[in-house]
Amino acid sequence: MTYALIREEAYAANMQLPELGLVLFTFGNVSAADRQAGVFAIKPSGVPYANLRPEDMVVVDFDGKLVDGNLRPSSDTLTHAVLYKHWEHVGGISHTHSVYATAWAQSGRDIPLFGTTHADHLTVDVPCAPPMEDEKIRGDYEYETGFQILRCFKTRQLDPREVEMILVGNHAPFTWGKTAAKAVYHSAVLETVAKMALLTEQINPEALRMKESLIRKHFERKHGPDSYYGQA
Amino acid sequence: MTYALIREEAYAANMQLPELGLVLFTFGNVSAADRQAGVFAIKPSGVPYANLRPEDMVVVDFDGKLVDGNLRPSSDTLTHAVLYKHWEHVGGISHTHSVYATAWAQSGRDIPLFGTTHADHLTVDVPCAPPMEDEKIRGDYEYETGFQILRCFKTRQLDPREVEMILVGNHAPFTWGKTAAKAVYHSAVLETVAKMALLTEQINPEALRMKESLIRKHFERKHGPDSYYGQA
Amino acid sequence: MTYALIREEAYAANMQLPELGLVLFTFGNVSAADRQAGVFAIKPSGVPYANLRPEDMVVVDFDGKLVDGNLRPSSDTLTHAVLYKHWEHVGGISHTHSVYATAWAQSGRDIPLFGTTHADHLTVDVPCAPPMEDEKIRGDYEYETGFQILRCFKTRQLDPREVEMILVGNHAPFTWGKTAAKAVYHSAVLETVAKMALLTEQINPEALRMKESLIRKHFERKHGPDSYYGQA
Amino acid sequence: MTYALIREEAYAANMQLPELGLVLFTFGNVSAADRQAGVFAIKPSGVPYANLRPEDMVVVDFDGKLVDGNLRPSSDTLTHAVLYKHWEHVGGISHTHSVYATAWAQSGRDIPLFGTTHADHLTVDVPCAPPMEDEKIRGDYEYETGFQILRCFKTRQLDPREVEMILVGNHAPFTWGKTAAKAVYHSAVLETVAKMALLTEQINPEALRMKESLIRKHFERKHGPDSYYGQA
Repeated sequence: MTYALIREEAYAANMQLPELGLVLFTFGNVSAADRQAGVFAIKPSGVPYANLRPEDMVVVDFDGKLVDGNLRPSSDTLTHAVLYKHWEHVGGISHTHSVYATAWAQSGRDIPLFGTTHADHLTVDVPCAPPMEDEKIRGDYEYETGFQILRCFKTRQLDPREVEMILVGNHAPFTWGKTAAKAVYHSAVLETVAKMALLTEQINPEALRMKESLIRKHFERKHGPDSYYGQA
Repeated sequence: MTYALIREEAYAANMQLPELGLVLFTFGNVSAADRQAGVFAIKPSGVPYANLRPEDMVVVDFDGKLVDGNLRPSSDTLTHAVLYKHWEHVGGISHTHSVYATAWAQSGRDIPLFGTTHADHLTVDVPCAPPMEDEKIRGDYEYETGFQILRCFKTRQLDPREVEMILVGNHAPFTWGKTAAKAVYHSAVLETVAKMALLTEQINPEALRMKESLIRKHFERKHGPDSYYGQA
Repeated sequence: MTYALIREEAYAANMQLPELGLVLFTFGNVSAADRQAGVFAIKPSGVPYANLRPEDMVVVDFDGKLVDGNLRPSSDTLTHAVLYKHWEHVGGISHTHSVYATAWAQSGRDIPLFGTTHADHLTVDVPCAPPMEDEKIRGDYEYETGFQILRCFKTRQLDPREVEMILVGNHAPFTWGKTAAKAVYHSAVLETVAKMALLTEQINPEALRMKESLIRKHFERKHGPDSYYGQA
Repeated sequence: MTYALIREEAYAANMQLPELGLVLFTFGNVSAADRQAGVFAIKPSGVPYANLRPEDMVVVDFDGKLVDGNLRPSSDTLTHAVLYKHWEHVGGISHTHSVYATAWAQSGRDIPLFGTTHADHLTVDVPCAPPMEDEKIRGDYEYETGFQILRCFKTRQLDPREVEMILVGNHAPFTWGKTAAKAVYHSAVLETVAKMALLTEQINPEALRMKESLIRKHFERKHGPDSYYGQA
């Protein structure tokens, strides 16, 4: 098997999606990049998880051109390609239609930062990118979805190394990380944070965003130069 | 076993219902049609899923008359029969009382099209048929339920080849497709879409329907003449 | 093993509770009656389901007096006893703290009849008995809980052969049936109906009760003299 | 293995968290104390549950100083240490980010006592400690979280032997008990009570707290000098 490492990595990460309850049928896809080779491996389009094998992963370059594989790649491949091309630190990308995160995306709202579960992973509300203009939808839609995400990060001056997730308005979440496994990890964190935030507002419609000092403390516990979470 | 193909198909599709979390006890039934023979196989009434066998499936014609089988067919058989008789392209029908779709049916509201998960499967709100008139309820109720569905599609000028699901007001959903497996697939999609729509309105009571350009794009990705989802 | 039949029946029915997701830890109990012998077998108090054995079931009479068994019976035993003593057709009783039914009991509201899932099993709202008076609470509490249920049925002129479930206000549901298995079946039906009703009101706060003609039709499909649900 | 008993106890209790659906990934930790030795065993920081072994548990004293172990202890270790040091009867502590309890913590509200499921375990609303002052957050944060909990109990005159759970505002729950297993038991009870209370308010925004006589009755059934729940 050529590109064995990223195929295995993408395969294993894709198989995590049903295990974590993040997908129904084939509504999701994960990719893993090989930065040296300038390619990434991604799930083939519409193939049930039960039938997937590592060798089914399709390898494409950062322009989305087929490099290796017998199957058609995920219909969202161009979105992945745009993100890899512009964000050089990203090693894996995950896209799901997980229920709570998708409901926030459909509602068009950012997810407010209400607690430490959220702050352990990012210090801002989870951004929700506004829907794209009609001519872009009619054009190269998945390619434009990548730029929709880039634009949202630029407009809001967010750093994709610190904020590793986004909601695409009326659509669903995309998450990323240094590896495909990390990207899927962020999909699961986002789903939990999305559910907790909805419940929080139901319990107390006046619930306040967490205060800044506590946000910084929790993020730095896990991510700062003096982080002390996990094993050294 | 006579009618082995549709019995196996109906059996396998029925067994998917508990696996996908769409039924409690026996509250659901799936059928599979043989268009050449003019018959369909359907789950027997009130038999627990754990005890079902392919040979238990009951074979009836498109007027609901028994053709083959030792058990009494599902009490909803006449509803299936009416749909098969009038919609010639339908090869399988699924009926469940899945919780979120049933709650929408009980609420008497169509499910608004809020996002791409919905638009990947149909370009309109999921229709909710209004309750039927009293004399029809007292008459041949399950037969009339079939006409209640036909009437709703006619009134709203919907095409059952494009919209493969409906909510029957105060009752529960029916879905269909080219095969019994596809019908069950639509039951699961509907349940997810129903849950997402409720959550969307809870997060943002002012949430807007998805715009038309994006609806068309997503539906055509999967279903149009230039569809590029799945394997060729 | 003495009283083997009802002990096996009570054991099997109790084991259904965790399987159906109706209990956390030991928060539930089911009993099975032997009408000829004038006794019933009930789960012992506070024993984890994983450790239960048929011979652990405790046999008591309809006054709640110990007849056979080495363990202390469920703390709710006297409530079961009162119901068996006054309702001669009851063969099994189930008590759970299932989440949605308990939330309705805590809210002090009857569960409105919104759809056919409910009407397939009873033709009225699920009754919620008001909390009992203080002196009764301080007295023989579990015994009084039985009378609280009897009183509610009497006041509302309900027939326990037709309505086989109740919510005890601020507490939780009790259900019954001809057998212990039927009682547990009703616990599961009630939990589903309770969840659907809450979701229905969330989707449409103005949702209407189902109309009487449809209620009667569905109930009689399953229970009337001309019922045609299930196998003959 | 040194400190084998508390390591085994802490290990078994930690493994219960994923089994009971109380944690995502590593978002939780349980400890078990040896009062004679003046130490407790706690989960190492950031190690996936699937990889945990009893010997990985880290042993520290009641000031949080490492006594035995090769891994870095949970980042919440100092919070556990403070509670053990000040509450002498506590033998185990559990911390999770379970979804419903965390949503209440994020909402900043106590969980109202609506029913017997709650009253079986404590006679007051589940307290929610207000967020701590900024200088404390910037200081020794986890240590201060311990004092935040102690302060809340002192201010409200609560007895930690009767109330064995708390919500830390904007963060998540802590629970405790005579053993680590009991602490985890309380985490699960709290999650269920938290879910039921949210649903209760959704069903009836005017739902009333349970009356005092019934609260006392239920608590004393399980915990009073004349308790009659469970086996003697």
